[in-house]
Amino acid sequence: MKEHELIGIIKGELNSKYIGDDCAYITDAGIVVTQDNLVEDIHFCLEYISPFELGYKSVMVNLSDIAASGAEPLCLTVGLSLPKYVTTEFIKDFYRGMKKAAGKIQIVGGDITGGDKVFISVTAIGKDSDRKISSRKFAKSGQKILVSGNHGSSAAGLELLKSGISDRNNPFIKAHLMPMARLDISKNIAKTANKNYAMMDTSDGLADALSAIAYASGVKMVINFDKIPKYKNLEQFENYKDLVLYGGEDYELVATLDFIPEGMTVIGEVMKGQGLEIIYDDYKEILTRKDIERKLYNHFEGNEK
Amino acid sequence: MKEHELIGIIKGELNSKYIGDDCAYITDAGIVVTQDNLVEDIHFCLEYISPFELGYKSVMVNLSDIAASGAEPLCLTVGLSLPKYVTTEFIKDFYRGMKKAAGKIQIVGGDITGGDKVFISVTAIGKDSDRKISSRKFAKSGQKILVSGNHGSSAAGLELLKSGISDRNNPFIKAHLMPMARLDISKNIAKTANKNYAMMDTSDGLADALSAIAYASGVKMVINFDKIPKYKNLEQFENYKDLVLYGGEDYELVATLDFIPEGMTVIGEVMKGQGLEIIYDDYKEILTRKDIERKLYNHFEGNEK
Repeated sequence: MKEHELIGIIKGELNSKYIGDDCAYITDAGIVVTQDNLVEDIHFCLEYISPFELGYKSVMVNLSDIAASGAEPLCLTVGLSLPKYVTTEFIKDFYRGMKKAAGKIQIVGGDITGGDKVFISVTAIGKDSDRKISSRKFAKSGQKILVSGNHGSSAAGLELLKSGISDRNNPFIKAHLMPMARLDISKNIAKTANKNYAMMDTSDGLADALSAIAYASGVKMVINFDKIPKYKNLEQFENYKDLVLYGGEDYELVATLDFIPEGMTVIGEVMKGQGLEIIYDDYKEILTRKDIERKLYNHFEGNEK
Repeated sequence: MKEHELIGIIKGELNSKYIGDDCAYITDAGIVVTQDNLVEDIHFCLEYISPFELGYKSVMVNLSDIAASGAEPLCLTVGLSLPKYVTTEFIKDFYRGMKKAAGKIQIVGGDITGGDKVFISVTAIGKDSDRKISSRKFAKSGQKILVSGNHGSSAAGLELLKSGISDRNNPFIKAHLMPMARLDISKNIAKTANKNYAMMDTSDGLADALSAIAYASGVKMVINFDKIPKYKNLEQFENYKDLVLYGGEDYELVATLDFIPEGMTVIGEVMKGQGLEIIYDDYKEILTRKDIERKLYNHFEGNEK
């Protein structure tokens, strides 16, 4: 079963107005909440990632969802399941990594249990404070499409790791193992915005985020491939276009805004219509939600990522 | 490694003032948060529990932690990992069970991923509203010790299930598979209390909760075994005293109060001193924290529960 089919079933059963964005916004309480799983041999492989990096990434992945909502991160809880072979050193390093990523944001609780494989489920809670909270439903034609950071780096890093290269100073490998949630950029956007805006992170890839916004908002997202920021030597990878669009795990922000915040680059414009249009030098393609889903990694295929 | 050793390591690494109670109380934001894991073949066995009951129990376990804090439940998120063999019907029934248990409390999000075994990590968030939030540190000599409901039922139910009996009308089996978080009693206590009080649920057993309060508050908890409410025919189980004290998973409340709320029974008194003293008809025993830990189920032993 594909993930989006599963989510469809769950939405049907729960009939909850909150399910749709990565963070649920509980307006009464002024908080946003998100929970993400990282499962051994599905989302990570202990051969490539150290316990410290794993703890670090587990927290960043969730803080990135908070960043995408525009909220101020408040606290984290961690549900952890560990096999018996895991050592005290592993656990210490894992928590050190989590603490490093969390910085001033407190890890306030959670649960730790046994299991056959390492399973991590982190919950992050944020406050709306005096910020405007985003939704993928809020894109409007006429807005600019903007992204933070470089794209395709994390997936390139995974390719290098799989090929046996493990140099932690390599920018691609660093991007894959120690991603950075864009909390500062998010804060600036959410405090500056005076109209509704769409924002997501690129956890599942840039094309997926753009397409999800297009689909949820009922608009066409038109971007220019050459405007997407990337490390120059990404082009050394034969499939670099796929890495940029479908690689995922860069945890950069994609937003539709009518202003240009520091750290964000304009890559296109929101138009009337539907789907995702990507303009290249000499041709363009229009991708439906189905096209994207076909291209995307599917969690239930068991592909190690 | 024992669970309390692990928690010691984690506390040391995180150095967080919040870790100690089952719910972390974020006073600035006026919220409490708790996250609990349920792992296949450690916390449950699909041979004994239906997907509906599993969903139901996963939610109740977490709502019970909210009840123990005294807070008003606000929302839930669910991290779920499912093996490939799990059917659409399983998932639908699981979410129906969760929804049934949640009632008016919204399930607002979460994550669903693949995995080798069923792994469930539920986060529950509550609001302090106009309530007094409990802590296991808040017991004071002179307070009464009170419990809700009947004790030992859930563990008796598990024994029956393991022996091949599966009648869902049997009160013990019902207590094990479909426990009830004591939200109404908790609400009454938290709205009535005008002084600090200790409260926990009996997820890990009545003796463990009493001992944890004694240890965290630096007091002696003195209880009278015969005053602990139980189903009369629990005595048909040879080990019924162990079921009452160490069985766990009844999800009843234990509190130290200076008033007697509806639905709670006085079973003893908080005294100066340390440890847990249990008075029987013709003898008494004093149990240290270590004694209790030795007796308790250890998640890392892989005992199916």
